[in-house]
Amino acid sequence: MTASSFAAALSDKAAATEALLERLLADDAGAGELARPPRLVAAMRHAVLGGGKRLRPFLAVETARLLGRAGEGPLRAGAAVELLHGYSLVHDDLPCMDDDDLRRGKPTVHRAFDEATAILAGDALQTLAFEVLADPATDADGAVRSELVLGLARAAGLGGMVGGQMLDLAAEGRYGAADLDEAGVRRLQAMKTGAILAFSVEAGAIIGRASPPRRRDLVRYGRALGAAFQVADDILDREASTDALGKRTGKDQEKGKATLVDILGLDGAHAECRRLVAEAEAALADYGPEADLLREAARFTAERKA
Amino acid sequence: MTASSFAAALSDKAAATEALLERLLADDAGAGELARPPRLVAAMRHAVLGGGKRLRPFLAVETARLLGRAGEGPLRAGAAVELLHGYSLVHDDLPCMDDDDLRRGKPTVHRAFDEATAILAGDALQTLAFEVLADPATDADGAVRSELVLGLARAAGLGGMVGGQMLDLAAEGRYGAADLDEAGVRRLQAMKTGAILAFSVEAGAIIGRASPPRRRDLVRYGRALGAAFQVADDILDREASTDALGKRTGKDQEKGKATLVDILGLDGAHAECRRLVAEAEAALADYGPEADLLREAARFTAERKA
Repeated sequence: MTASSFAAALSDKAAATEALLERLLADDAGAGELARPPRLVAAMRHAVLGGGKRLRPFLAVETARLLGRAGEGPLRAGAAVELLHGYSLVHDDLPCMDDDDLRRGKPTVHRAFDEATAILAGDALQTLAFEVLADPATDADGAVRSELVLGLARAAGLGGMVGGQMLDLAAEGRYGAADLDEAGVRRLQAMKTGAILAFSVEAGAIIGRASPPRRRDLVRYGRALGAAFQVADDILDREASTDALGKRTGKDQEKGKATLVDILGLDGAHAECRRLVAEAEAALADYGPEADLLREAARFTAERKA
Repeated sequence: MTASSFAAALSDKAAATEALLERLLADDAGAGELARPPRLVAAMRHAVLGGGKRLRPFLAVETARLLGRAGEGPLRAGAAVELLHGYSLVHDDLPCMDDDDLRRGKPTVHRAFDEATAILAGDALQTLAFEVLADPATDADGAVRSELVLGLARAAGLGGMVGGQMLDLAAEGRYGAADLDEAGVRRLQAMKTGAILAFSVEAGAIIGRASPPRRRDLVRYGRALGAAFQVADDILDREASTDALGKRTGKDQEKGKATLVDILGLDGAHAECRRLVAEAEAALADYGPEADLLREAARFTAERKA
């Protein structure tokens, strides 16, 4: 497994995800009494089409493949996570949140449309994520579908992603003094971004009918990768330019938010990334070369430049 | 069946719903690595506890009871719909949407907290609604749980409630001239409020394992009740005072939005309410006195004064 064959696999799966998202957000008005308002569909398409590495769908699809499941089901699970992720970006970018004008090199949804439309587009993207998971096309077994829904909801809600965003706003000092220590920063990151990345892997494990010990290992892999993702993000926010990232950088310093780079230093943060990659690899110790793409995904996540 | 015995039944079920919502939104911090941020929990509690007639949970629970199912499952399904409804109110009240300061006689969430917290509380309430439905405590059968999730998602998303809110904003003329005719107003209302009310009934039918023809009848009942609800709302917005409603009235006229009262006149709107109640009752023609509470619910919905 080389970095370039990983890049090719990532790109292949991103294209398949894009095609599925395009179908799920088709801009025909829909038939019948209840129609999809074109402005809302356009805002949702703006939010999720034509961009992103699609790392979360990759993790879902590749984990399911490792367990012998391929096809439409894992792809739909991955697309659902991507819809959920897209909703979170739209809401996080809002003026009263992070107030960002730029996302993936394009105007954010509230800049391209307006605030009300952005809030509704995010709301509808979240709903659509659950609709996709609960649809029989995702898996023939209703118990599997509801387990996917439950897992995504737990990862996305007040004890996961949304809770993490609340902690992130508090970390700016909006609601009183907030000096996070290392444990506090790690918890915030595990909730805000780690939970959904770990669930991406778990979704593949659920669809792939992983045995409980295998599922535990895969979730451990997902958590390590998720943590590495966020440390790498902190490093990029410090080192990279806005041009390279397609979004504004240096924001954490501006807002006085503690990151792991502040706490561990740049060298320490790089070392922490390497430690987390090793942990992700250790979690896959029971697998042979068939798990090389997941191993490479952990390295890619930790070392990415954008 | 008298109006007062209906009021007692509604009040009983509201108390059971309130107790369950209180448990679902318990303000203990939670154990383990991922915790519930207290500020977010407080905002979610502010949004859904201590108010509301709980008509949607009543419909879910009473429909399931009609089909022989009682206990925790139908109550959880009803609470999930109430959480979803609560999220929609929080987001609809935001400054960039309807800009309301008052809801159920209390400050709206963005007034009591702040805008960012209100958006996140709404987001997390939506997520929690799906989490509650997908939890095995709601039904032992995973296929039933995922059918509940799918139904709620379709009623709540871009072809339902959120789409209806988008149409409602457009009806104010924000995005260009928008003169809705009667069919346009009816579609908007069927999406914005009708779909969730109809799903409340359908949730009871799903949990109650209704046969396909029975389910169709019950959904027809739910749609008629949902339509009556919105016509009654238009009438109240014209006739009632802010004090009686605990929210601002006269808003539609202020914003130049067409309502069924504009199109049909006040007398015509009252007649339409009576027609819809008759339609709801006709949909229950296969049932005897055991469906009297649902019949009364349709009358109550059409004739309510707050």
